[in-house]
Amino acid sequence: MVSPDTSSSPPQGKPVTQVRYELLTLGDELLLGLAANGHLGFIGGELGRRGAGLRRNVTVTDDSEAISRQFRESWAAADVVIITGGLGPTSDDRTREAVAGVLGQKLVFDPGIERTIAELFARFGRVMTPNNLKQAWRFERSDVLANANGTAPGLWVEQDGKVLCMLPGPPNELQPMFIEQVLPRLAKLGLLREREAYVQIRTAGIGESLLETRLQPIFDRAGEDLGIAFCAHAGRVDCRLSSPGDRLGLADLEEIAAECARVLGEDFVCYGHDSLAKVCADFLRAQERTLAVAEAATGGLLANAFADFCGAVKFFAGGCVCCSNDAKMQLLDVPECLLQQHGAVSSECAVAMATGAAEKLGADYALAVTGFTGPCGGTHENPVGTIYIALHAPHGVWSKKLSYPGPRAAVKERAVNTALDWLRRELVRSSRVPPQSARTAG
Amino acid sequence: MVSPDTSSSPPQGKPVTQVRYELLTLGDELLLGLAANGHLGFIGGELGRRGAGLRRNVTVTDDSEAISRQFRESWAAADVVIITGGLGPTSDDRTREAVAGVLGQKLVFDPGIERTIAELFARFGRVMTPNNLKQAWRFERSDVLANANGTAPGLWVEQDGKVLCMLPGPPNELQPMFIEQVLPRLAKLGLLREREAYVQIRTAGIGESLLETRLQPIFDRAGEDLGIAFCAHAGRVDCRLSSPGDRLGLADLEEIAAECARVLGEDFVCYGHDSLAKVCADFLRAQERTLAVAEAATGGLLANAFADFCGAVKFFAGGCVCCSNDAKMQLLDVPECLLQQHGAVSSECAVAMATGAAEKLGADYALAVTGFTGPCGGTHENPVGTIYIALHAPHGVWSKKLSYPGPRAAVKERAVNTALDWLRRELVRSSRVPPQSARTAG
Repeated sequence: MVSPDTSSSPPQGKPVTQVRYELLTLGDELLLGLAANGHLGFIGGELGRRGAGLRRNVTVTDDSEAISRQFRESWAAADVVIITGGLGPTSDDRTREAVAGVLGQKLVFDPGIERTIAELFARFGRVMTPNNLKQAWRFERSDVLANANGTAPGLWVEQDGKVLCMLPGPPNELQPMFIEQVLPRLAKLGLLREREAYVQIRTAGIGESLLETRLQPIFDRAGEDLGIAFCAHAGRVDCRLSSPGDRLGLADLEEIAAECARVLGEDFVCYGHDSLAKVCADFLRAQERTLAVAEAATGGLLANAFADFCGAVKFFAGGCVCCSNDAKMQLLDVPECLLQQHGAVSSECAVAMATGAAEKLGADYALAVTGFTGPCGGTHENPVGTIYIALHAPHGVWSKKLSYPGPRAAVKERAVNTALDWLRRELVRSSRVPPQSARTAG
Repeated sequence: MVSPDTSSSPPQGKPVTQVRYELLTLGDELLLGLAANGHLGFIGGELGRRGAGLRRNVTVTDDSEAISRQFRESWAAADVVIITGGLGPTSDDRTREAVAGVLGQKLVFDPGIERTIAELFARFGRVMTPNNLKQAWRFERSDVLANANGTAPGLWVEQDGKVLCMLPGPPNELQPMFIEQVLPRLAKLGLLREREAYVQIRTAGIGESLLETRLQPIFDRAGEDLGIAFCAHAGRVDCRLSSPGDRLGLADLEEIAAECARVLGEDFVCYGHDSLAKVCADFLRAQERTLAVAEAATGGLLANAFADFCGAVKFFAGGCVCCSNDAKMQLLDVPECLLQQHGAVSSECAVAMATGAAEKLGADYALAVTGFTGPCGGTHENPVGTIYIALHAPHGVWSKKLSYPGPRAAVKERAVNTALDWLRRELVRSSRVPPQSARTAG
């Protein structure tokens, strides 16, 4: 463990929600938009689930002056600082030196780390170049966090009543290190909870403001101890219930969430983090039903939403992507006269695609999507953003016309989510009917 | 435009590379890991292309004290501050008030914004709740940036020799607003370049170190005025050539890039940012050829790569997503005996899928992908990560076996890119053959 230091005790006695966490993500590639900052989502999510909210994430350039300035500020303001990146062997990694300067610690060469790096290179039959040994330097008063998947170890410092944790940048190295070593260390110091700290309600097909309006009476009854946060995304709105002051327990939050779910009816998707596709997949598995999809407007994204599950073959019969009329006729037996009479962007075509997919692939349910996702295409009657969705079920087939604003990618995402949500509602209803009569109805 | 203000002139005369840009991304949902911070990548990328590097990105919580504190610090340090999020209608959006306090501006109710919001609700047939009118408040001395895709307009302030730009959080609202309104305004003030500041060479199928080795002699001849940056992603490596000291003009950089392209031969994909699918699509259009795809392992992502282009119907005949053996037989006429003898993850199956797709959809070319993307599945002979790709062309059909490390999403992305690159190389070769003989060969 860390060598004793007169000022080394970490922040103690503070409620978890008041521990101030800051995340410093280093790397010019993040600021240039060349790589996504996935660490914020991962680390923020893991801390948030355990009631310890990340207060700030700062991404700065790789130059050592910017790193020093930012770390000095964050170290003064925060109880726990987590730094990602800048531990690698290449010459633009100056993080260790910059941080050591602010901490007032010396860097020491650790023969234990050197051995570990050498062993790793030997195991993969690669040659260790001298710059790899940069990674064997650590702060004089620090712990080493072993890296099972790479050469750069993490570093852990307890000093000035604070914690500093430095982690390597590659996600496959950082993530297991964070889960297996960092979270238990933080929990041991009382800086986060052992288990999840909030209850999430996932909804679909209802806007954020209407959702708030419908749930407000429940929130009002719960009073000021209840913390509420909304997050809207492409037709889906999540609502997180927590108790920032710790006056409501998990059971209280679950009870409030259950009341919300009752009020929301079919607009309620699930508790937690499951995707719409996951919820549909679970229903299909439970009801032993299969699904096929036929796509023009969404180009394969709807198929991918289902094909992405391991073992999808059990409930996902397959999909056809047919942008052209020829493909709709060849793959789905859509009649040529129907296409001539109504056009490919029509309620009739969506229905024929859904039915064709269900028949061709022998599926119980089928979803079809056709439309103009823009920027090209569109007619006076069906301008860009117009989408027709059809749902084929054992007891009938329906279609609906929708209209979405936004660029192509947004229209496609909304169309996929609307199709998934429609299927989900149908599966919710059929799950309430005894299986025997549902089958007969088909 | 903005009302005149004695101190309102923006930073002028500074070289673009020295203009200090800061991005403030607001939202508890980012810090809680509920939503990815895509704004950093998008805005950082757009600024970087025009020679203006983002210096810092700070994500803070939604509470108004944190927003005030952070904006005060950023406003003091930066020339341009861009704020995303916190403009929505729900009660946790307190950004306007916090920012107005730091700017020393009053908030005024703008009836023009109110009208626009009401019209938008009417157009989409939704009910406007009172909290939506929060979005009609703006700073007294600010411009309004129209939002074509949502209710919250952007705001633009020039004050204290600086620029503040506030944008709504949803990407489909923010991105067009940024491209169409913010970039031109910034360019007009001389805060970024009118056009891209570097020349990018896109390569595929060659590793970063080998690429560097092959291009080094060219870089050595160009001398120290040349700036070089590599960025590798899922089988593709980009090389950016710039002139940090501005001593090389665009023509010089383009000449160096052309020399690199000659040395690289087929490993060179394009200049700029076109995707592999875009390059393939352009070849197919030019050669008047069509493509079909058949997917098991990639679940629809390969189809989507082509279907995503406007007018894709001209060259993209369609796609089949068939995870199950039944679907492979029903949609692609893959013989049952072939599946029994070789299995669905085999070179033989990939070839049969490609041929079936080309025949069913009457296409000149077809790509097929089958494999184990993990985490489940895999055999001793074909462990998780094994992918078979087949390419059907007018003059033959081939397959190859590949193996990729990483989680499911990474394996799928690599498989898509490898399939696209294979088709691209084939189309490069056939573009060198006179069309007549190429047709005869088919």
